[in-house]
Amino acid sequence: MPGNATEDSSANLMDDATFAGLLASVRSRRPLVHHITNSVTINDCANITICAGAAPVMAEAPEEVAEMVAAAGALVLNIGTLSRGQVDAMLIAGHRANELGIPVILDPVGAGATSFRTGTARHLLDSLKIAVLKGNAGEIGVLAGTGGSVRGVDSGGVKGDPVKTVRECARVTGTVVAMTGPVDIIADDRRVFLVRNGNPLMDRLSGTGCMAASVTGAFAAVADDYTVAATAALAAFGLAGERAATGERGPYAFRTALFDELFGLTPSDFAKHAQIEGPYGV
Amino acid sequence: MPGNATEDSSANLMDDATFAGLLASVRSRRPLVHHITNSVTINDCANITICAGAAPVMAEAPEEVAEMVAAAGALVLNIGTLSRGQVDAMLIAGHRANELGIPVILDPVGAGATSFRTGTARHLLDSLKIAVLKGNAGEIGVLAGTGGSVRGVDSGGVKGDPVKTVRECARVTGTVVAMTGPVDIIADDRRVFLVRNGNPLMDRLSGTGCMAASVTGAFAAVADDYTVAATAALAAFGLAGERAATGERGPYAFRTALFDELFGLTPSDFAKHAQIEGPYGV
Amino acid sequence: MPGNATEDSSANLMDDATFAGLLASVRSRRPLVHHITNSVTINDCANITICAGAAPVMAEAPEEVAEMVAAAGALVLNIGTLSRGQVDAMLIAGHRANELGIPVILDPVGAGATSFRTGTARHLLDSLKIAVLKGNAGEIGVLAGTGGSVRGVDSGGVKGDPVKTVRECARVTGTVVAMTGPVDIIADDRRVFLVRNGNPLMDRLSGTGCMAASVTGAFAAVADDYTVAATAALAAFGLAGERAATGERGPYAFRTALFDELFGLTPSDFAKHAQIEGPYGV
Repeated sequence: MPGNATEDSSANLMDDATFAGLLASVRSRRPLVHHITNSVTINDCANITICAGAAPVMAEAPEEVAEMVAAAGALVLNIGTLSRGQVDAMLIAGHRANELGIPVILDPVGAGATSFRTGTARHLLDSLKIAVLKGNAGEIGVLAGTGGSVRGVDSGGVKGDPVKTVRECARVTGTVVAMTGPVDIIADDRRVFLVRNGNPLMDRLSGTGCMAASVTGAFAAVADDYTVAATAALAAFGLAGERAATGERGPYAFRTALFDELFGLTPSDFAKHAQIEGPYGV
Repeated sequence: MPGNATEDSSANLMDDATFAGLLASVRSRRPLVHHITNSVTINDCANITICAGAAPVMAEAPEEVAEMVAAAGALVLNIGTLSRGQVDAMLIAGHRANELGIPVILDPVGAGATSFRTGTARHLLDSLKIAVLKGNAGEIGVLAGTGGSVRGVDSGGVKGDPVKTVRECARVTGTVVAMTGPVDIIADDRRVFLVRNGNPLMDRLSGTGCMAASVTGAFAAVADDYTVAATAALAAFGLAGERAATGERGPYAFRTALFDELFGLTPSDFAKHAQIEGPYGV
Repeated sequence: MPGNATEDSSANLMDDATFAGLLASVRSRRPLVHHITNSVTINDCANITICAGAAPVMAEAPEEVAEMVAAAGALVLNIGTLSRGQVDAMLIAGHRANELGIPVILDPVGAGATSFRTGTARHLLDSLKIAVLKGNAGEIGVLAGTGGSVRGVDSGGVKGDPVKTVRECARVTGTVVAMTGPVDIIADDRRVFLVRNGNPLMDRLSGTGCMAASVTGAFAAVADDYTVAATAALAAFGLAGERAATGERGPYAFRTALFDELFGLTPSDFAKHAQIEGPYGV
């Protein structure tokens, strides 16, 4: 693997059944995943949460977010179409989630594209305890401070080695960081996982990044180890993408299949086809 | 039927052709259905309104809602992602609709999950003349005051007999109440209808509850009897769901078929396959 | 053609390869198209922009719109669910786009239905330099001042000859005007183009008008001649609609195919099947 990591001694303890067990837990516990998210892909996030096996709720009124999040298993914050009022709601809900030990997933959509987005992402990272920060390469590079380029909401890539970028981002933010891409890279302060599931059509569709954060929320809701949860979530979502990409489908027919493949994914099939490497020690 | 109701003497007057006639009226009159609704399923509501045969418009600026609703055949209020400003717009539009005799449909999404939602639903019921209150079991139980549980936007069921709950809700609110579920229950102060159309996949898809309210709006726009309109709407939507659920479809392929089956549903086919029971007298 | 136009001497210079060349440019340059748009069809706009070959971004916070639009190749303003705050953001972004020479597309959704919408559309036309005004017949008739009827967001048609209406609208607004319909009519102060591609199913689906504006944004981003860009965009989108309408599809299956047909449309196929007439001189 890139980045000169050495394989961790705990690697043998982490087999594909561990990840598949999380999918089974999502299905059996059906956790509520509270989203405060953008208006572009909010419906996709709701439906992919259901297809993962969890229950979505979207609520962003300051009057109710603290009460709503208290019933949830995870909170997903996505700044894709952020507004000042929405950031306030994110802080209220996030603080309450932190008090209650409910994991908070942050998707810093477009961080790097405008100073409002970059500043908001940093402010949320500073103000809240984030369980998993999930972004594309450019966003993570920007938030790591090591360099990344973002145009609109699309990644223009990072400067230097992606694995080092993810590790550095995990170090400076103190969170689990998940960078999506052809190979997904998930790191905390001591481990790195790589996920090789996925398909390029996922980049030809609006909302796959947002959906990945929703699925991560569903998995984090049933896990203690958020690094493992994020890894499992990205592998399950990527595997659904692989399977949805059969035939000559265009991106919109692919989209239908993406939801249905995740819905139909069984834990045993997931264990068999997940392409997860690691943990590598840092 | 449950709830010890006796069959109403008017039962013979109400055959399936009555309900099918409403579908034919929606198609021929193409009423405008003004929505003030949530951002999660707003697109689904627009498209299902078209597929029912009506014309959707979504508008929530306080500057225009009174003018917009005046051109509409029905107003659908849905509190799925409510905000203080949206509630104000609902009141403006609702009062104007009441003045003009335009039926108002209320979908109290998530009532019971937070006090903001429960309080807003009650406030709208107190302030406006609602033609049809359509909710899931938990929401209706909460608003009936007889007990219901809601987690996020999902029903956790009612305490006691569902038919009694719907009747009690109709009594305390003074409106037609439609409770969706495996069997839909529609009641006013003297009649109860049951609708047995539908498919469990409708619960694996975000937005089917919201869509049911939109379709109810389309039918109420062409009817004088809102109890009959809500019954016909839920039967038509449920029948579309039944037909969409053929084969091995996942929920997203089912979603495509759900819209298209409603679009393609003819009044004669509806008359033949609607599974409506009642009216039962209270 | 209607409207007594004489064929322009430049007609020979404008063949289908010109239009197809724009599609090729969108694909190779992948311009960023910044949208400030309605919440009903925002996801459709994002995905159709991708399928055209461009990159969408949706942003409407006043804190960031000037910075975001500076990175874009076009700005699409759509008043489908407008609010006071959104209009402010449109003005900030629009002024910045004008300063930078970035084309601004205006979709005056529902102009004519309420005075707030009509007034906002006029205000944006007065305050900003609009590159292309794209609307349905009723909206364009209203903004031309020659008479048009709009119910909700649906056209009730224009008073008199549509080509004359489009020309008059182009004259009074000083912009390129594109009126969508069974035959799309595109005019500036000296030329008229007609586009005969399309399919009636496009009217049975929410969002096709909005999507047409997004595609126009993608084409305008790579063109100097916005009249030609709008013509090419509507022809490409209409051709995708034609191809999507094969078989017995309902509107929602048609929707999936519409996205995928635009995604798969090659410039050479576009050159062969575009049904563009003109330019006719005024």
